[in-house]
Amino acid sequence: MYKFIITLDVTPGARAKILERAPEAQAATRAEPGCIAYDLYACTDNPDRMVFVEAWVDEAAHAFHMEQEHTKRFIAFHEQFHERLVFETINPAD
Amino acid sequence: MYKFIITLDVTPGARAKILERAPEAQAATRAEPGCIAYDLYACTDNPDRMVFVEAWVDEAAHAFHMEQEHTKRFIAFHEQFHERLVFETINPAD
Repeated sequence: MYKFIITLDVTPGARAKILERAPEAQAATRAEPGCIAYDLYACTDNPDRMVFVEAWVDEAAHAFHMEQEHTKRFIAFHEQFHERLVFETINPAD
Repeated sequence: MYKFIITLDVTPGARAKILERAPEAQAATRAEPGCIAYDLYACTDNPDRMVFVEAWVDEAAHAFHMEQEHTKRFIAFHEQFHERLVFETINPAD
């Protein structure tokens, strides 16, 4: 499994805009054969912080995901608001 | 650094109760000398899921945290609502 967490700090007010578009991106992503999890979380005490927790069957499945049009569209939308992005791998429990 | 993510599924309606008590627990925890981060996140499309993202200077700092009265109080409160808990270490970016 290939699992990671992306911590994203965005410009003030942008998180709500990103989360508004998230359900469509999540539905398309979760329908990809190699997707195990594609979950978004909102920080409870920092309104400009969110995380993506993603789990893929392997790195190739994630690479495939990055090539999809829906992925490119969602990234193009949210990256305009990025202030800081931290990518960290997770050691899966199972 | 010792960093991990705990994914918590709780009984319906319990997340709000836990988050109501979180600021007090977070203030006490963040004041511990070995605490780097103690952040909570709410899943955006599962109302009964939340994650803790915790970073400590080392495992001893986390062990110290687990011995504090405020920690025991907060855990005793939220563990009554646990339906599933997954603990996974994170490989810190920095």
